[in-house]
Amino acid sequence: MDKLYEQTLLYDFYGELLTEHQKKIFQEVIFDDCSLGEVAKEHGISRQGVHDMIKRSSLILEEYEEKLGLVRKFLDIKEKVNRIKELADDEQVRRLSEEILEEL
Amino acid sequence: MDKLYEQTLLYDFYGELLTEHQKKIFQEVIFDDCSLGEVAKEHGISRQGVHDMIKRSSLILEEYEEKLGLVRKFLDIKEKVNRIKELADDEQVRRLSEEILEEL
Repeated sequence: MDKLYEQTLLYDFYGELLTEHQKKIFQEVIFDDCSLGEVAKEHGISRQGVHDMIKRSSLILEEYEEKLGLVRKFLDIKEKVNRIKELADDEQVRRLSEEILEEL
Repeated sequence: MDKLYEQTLLYDFYGELLTEHQKKIFQEVIFDDCSLGEVAKEHGISRQGVHDMIKRSSLILEEYEEKLGLVRKFLDIKEKVNRIKELADDEQVRRLSEEILEEL
């Protein structure tokens, strides 16, 4: 799994357990592709500070996944629902699969 | 949803975020059906202490669900997969649905 996709998934699942400040900085660097320098300037902290905060936030998210394993579980279910969608002849089954995939 | 089922689901999802002590007492009272008095005696704390700890642990689990909503999400997916299982003619689709339901 590529790192950005992994971070996105972890953030989707457990992001609400970060502080508002951690969330904001994580979003700006990881999703909005801002540079460390830009984010540092905006928040009045050092580039190193931004770097450390991203690293710390990623670690927190990874620790939640290590304990709960819900991303892993979800990926496995997603794969199976994708196979159902491919296999299914029934229109209702296909639609239900699509609904599930949108939620996952 | 009945209270015991709700507590079971919450514990399944987020139980690993409780301390070992909280987990043990929660399990004994909620799943093993021990009385507060029995558990109190075993752990050398008061009945009130056991009662408070269960209440506190339930609250912690509910707060995680309030933030992350993963139990709600998974219940919704479970319902849809159950419908797929009922609708599906294809043997492979039915087997995949069963595998997903076992995981959920």
